[in-house]
Amino acid sequence: MGKFLTDIEIAQATEMNRIADVATALGISDFIPYGMYKAKVDVNRLSDRKPDGRLILVTAINPTPAGEGKTTTAIGLADGLNRLGKKAVLALREPSLGPVFGIKGGAAGGGYAQVVPMEDINLHFTGDFHAITSANNLLAAMLDNHIYQGNELKIDINRITWKRTMDMNDRQLRRITDGLGGKTGGIPRDDGFEITAASEVMAILCLARDAEDLKERLGRIIVGYTEDDKPVTAAGLKAHGAMAALLKDALMPNLVQTLEHNPALIHGGPFANIAHGCNSIIATRTALQLGEYAVTEAGFGADLGAEKFIDIACRELNRMPDAVVIVATVRALKMHGGASKENAGQKDIAALEKGMPNLARHMENITQVFGLPAVVAINHFPADAPEELNMVRSFCEDAGVPVVLSDVWGKGGDGALELASEVVRLSASPRRPYAPLYDAGARIKDKIAAIVTRVYGGQGVEYSEDAEASIARLEHLGLDKFPICIAKTQYSLSDDPKKLARPEGFTVKVRTVKLSAGAGFIVVLSGSIMTMPGLPKVPAAENMDIAPDGTLSGIF
Amino acid sequence: MGKFLTDIEIAQATEMNRIADVATALGISDFIPYGMYKAKVDVNRLSDRKPDGRLILVTAINPTPAGEGKTTTAIGLADGLNRLGKKAVLALREPSLGPVFGIKGGAAGGGYAQVVPMEDINLHFTGDFHAITSANNLLAAMLDNHIYQGNELKIDINRITWKRTMDMNDRQLRRITDGLGGKTGGIPRDDGFEITAASEVMAILCLARDAEDLKERLGRIIVGYTEDDKPVTAAGLKAHGAMAALLKDALMPNLVQTLEHNPALIHGGPFANIAHGCNSIIATRTALQLGEYAVTEAGFGADLGAEKFIDIACRELNRMPDAVVIVATVRALKMHGGASKENAGQKDIAALEKGMPNLARHMENITQVFGLPAVVAINHFPADAPEELNMVRSFCEDAGVPVVLSDVWGKGGDGALELASEVVRLSASPRRPYAPLYDAGARIKDKIAAIVTRVYGGQGVEYSEDAEASIARLEHLGLDKFPICIAKTQYSLSDDPKKLARPEGFTVKVRTVKLSAGAGFIVVLSGSIMTMPGLPKVPAAENMDIAPDGTLSGIF
Repeated sequence: MGKFLTDIEIAQATEMNRIADVATALGISDFIPYGMYKAKVDVNRLSDRKPDGRLILVTAINPTPAGEGKTTTAIGLADGLNRLGKKAVLALREPSLGPVFGIKGGAAGGGYAQVVPMEDINLHFTGDFHAITSANNLLAAMLDNHIYQGNELKIDINRITWKRTMDMNDRQLRRITDGLGGKTGGIPRDDGFEITAASEVMAILCLARDAEDLKERLGRIIVGYTEDDKPVTAAGLKAHGAMAALLKDALMPNLVQTLEHNPALIHGGPFANIAHGCNSIIATRTALQLGEYAVTEAGFGADLGAEKFIDIACRELNRMPDAVVIVATVRALKMHGGASKENAGQKDIAALEKGMPNLARHMENITQVFGLPAVVAINHFPADAPEELNMVRSFCEDAGVPVVLSDVWGKGGDGALELASEVVRLSASPRRPYAPLYDAGARIKDKIAAIVTRVYGGQGVEYSEDAEASIARLEHLGLDKFPICIAKTQYSLSDDPKKLARPEGFTVKVRTVKLSAGAGFIVVLSGSIMTMPGLPKVPAAENMDIAPDGTLSGIF
Repeated sequence: MGKFLTDIEIAQATEMNRIADVATALGISDFIPYGMYKAKVDVNRLSDRKPDGRLILVTAINPTPAGEGKTTTAIGLADGLNRLGKKAVLALREPSLGPVFGIKGGAAGGGYAQVVPMEDINLHFTGDFHAITSANNLLAAMLDNHIYQGNELKIDINRITWKRTMDMNDRQLRRITDGLGGKTGGIPRDDGFEITAASEVMAILCLARDAEDLKERLGRIIVGYTEDDKPVTAAGLKAHGAMAALLKDALMPNLVQTLEHNPALIHGGPFANIAHGCNSIIATRTALQLGEYAVTEAGFGADLGAEKFIDIACRELNRMPDAVVIVATVRALKMHGGASKENAGQKDIAALEKGMPNLARHMENITQVFGLPAVVAINHFPADAPEELNMVRSFCEDAGVPVVLSDVWGKGGDGALELASEVVRLSASPRRPYAPLYDAGARIKDKIAAIVTRVYGGQGVEYSEDAEASIARLEHLGLDKFPICIAKTQYSLSDDPKKLARPEGFTVKVRTVKLSAGAGFIVVLSGSIMTMPGLPKVPAAENMDIAPDGTLSGIF
């Protein structure tokens, strides 16, 4: 039935509860309304309840162009838990404007598993991305102004690493030469923009414990190097106070609701390659304080998403997830087995069988490498053949991992009741102590090797000369005691997007290593990662519109 | 007493009323809260009261580095009117982030005449500037993407007029070359950024009647020309629907309060040179609907500000102001008479006498050229000598223009009681029919000549070859029936910033003429106008900070 309505039509047809009622039901008395249906939660004024809810991570197989429905499943799962009488609170990432105008559309779920008001969430929301953009660009302007005004710090203009940001898919800004306005127009130099989600300020906001920690992290940002090779920081430019002031409101998590009126904290949205791809620590901690269950997700497949969630985000939370949901679709597994996107809707047992090892690797990683209880959620599509579904089911059962069918897109929380029951059961076991994959104090190469061999299933790592030099330099400066954030293709367990399913015997080639000193992780880049996307031939923006009565259309 | 507190300290020491109470007192039931102390007014849901309040314009002599206190006087006047038992509503411009981090500081008044919460108003406020930035930059991205994807419209990349914007003082972006990312990185071309206040989208938002008019105006924006010389519009790129969607909330005026809890609508902030420098028409009309008195101001001195207010903004409102306040200070008048900024605080009767003709010209313009009732408000400073004040007083009285002393910075509304009484008296006369300086349908050169000779007191106008060609072209295309928006120095009645007081016999040199088709005015540029400022040697941002409890400091 819902299949004939677009996401925005379903969302607009739903009568929302007032956000005051959503907050009250959650036990929040101090919230800051942004209109009738959005609010910021003043976490400093929350009663000091312990964050003792159960932490549920939703992750997935390696993504394919068919889509897996990770966010949708997370939303449906929270609704399902609430239908079972459990108090579940969502903690999700905020969408970026860039993809909304591009090809991907919004990121507020879909069908009957959405967070609303979806138009607001997909457009400016409460302004967090804009605040991050401003803070990022203030630092850039102060950096170039410092050089222009005499360059007291002797910053080497050929070694500036800080870029400006814009929350837009704008390839034209990817590489630029700026400062071309003559004597009073700055200093000519090579430069470029990144999309806001790729800014280190975004990662910092998402990892900060509180306002003080935020300011300290901002101060540690390295924007470039001096002529005698010393790092230049935001604190050195006296920019971090103003940046923190700009981020004052953005640091508070945003409260909205699902279509079924259950609470959702939507806060922060860092890239899942050059950053860690999880919503803010503050939102997750708040969800754990307010709910019996905090349902969260991490960007891309479990190789990138779950690993970074555990090794970066959970390090700040100092706890493990209590249960992990691995989302898979029959269609996507067939694509891992060689089916084309066009044919992925047709029954193809052979392709499914060939693709299944992708799921197997992720199940093994979660249950054996990280030692966590997992359930596979098969996100059901009408075209899935019963034979195919049975095949996935018995495959998981043989591996000893529970598996359920879910249809949250078509049915909302009702389509996730079995999944919710399984999550309740799995997460009831005693709390595990925090056990990351590696010790942050280990050697950089050892940390990388642990991820590549134990999580990706690779044989080893190859380093470029540049990467070797960077590692040596970080070790020499004593800046190597941070967790690792690997930036590689999301489409494969390896670093080659064409190696689908479960590649073996591969090595991961590391091109560059760079420190995000404020965020507090070492980014390890394999291949080239696009940090400023472009628009497609027909941008989604062309179909967006507003009626005279203010109703928006064309957002999906 | 207040002299020892900074603006932000005074503001933070004031207990604000809840915005719900401010709205209720104003008779607004439909408002959208942004926290406890800010709201957007849903003007479509206002009862259809006629906008029949009295319209009071606050303008000034030509600005000097000494500062005149126009915004502060407008705020104090509104407080003074309310103290007299009159329901007065402010309609003011929103500050831009750029100057807040630069040298000028914020723009929310000063001393005991401020609008609050001043930190919020000066930083992101309700996100209007960010929405304008996004809409502007979406159009830019879609334009470059159109060219990159095959350039079906045959846009001439050497004749693109649309620039990207950022709400930042960032000279490094003033002139750039972009699209340098190789084959997939756009099309290399000369480009540049403007500060958000200079975007035509800002002017459009401020002149739009409603959401439909906004979308239509956005569609008419000319972004460049095709190879065969046809204008390329935002509608031609199918960008205007998405742009209007992005501006949905930004179009609603923002409600805040003065330190004395009186209502202030703060909405829109276009440049006062390449745009018209007034807050939004929607805010002014709303203030006229809700108050007995709507107090508004216009950017720069009366030569630019009042003229554009009457010839551009009032054309949309179809009414004249009912009274005009001309703000002057003894200090600034002495600077017009040759005193330096350092010496402007010392008694100097000769300099004052030499500077007074600047005030005289503006009084004549308001009362004789525009035929409006005027009062001169001398914004009082402690260093003003009684002899000097008497001199200004008798000068105005001799000219038949009422004059009052005000001290709103030190005393708030109490310091503007006499001014408020005079405004009540002056604006009680019967409503004048709308009578602009020129007919919009007249020839471009005739419209320009009317402003230069009748308002500036110049002898004539000289046109560059480029300006002549542009005028001929606009006339040929039938795009000449718009009001004129002159962009010239604000420091002089002439186009030469060094010609202070009341220059005579000058000609105004017009360098370029360009159409802002969406805003609906023809910009006439005299000299070079900076549309992307830079930061000073020590940016104000260096002193901004946030305490662990969230209190901001260093914003002024």
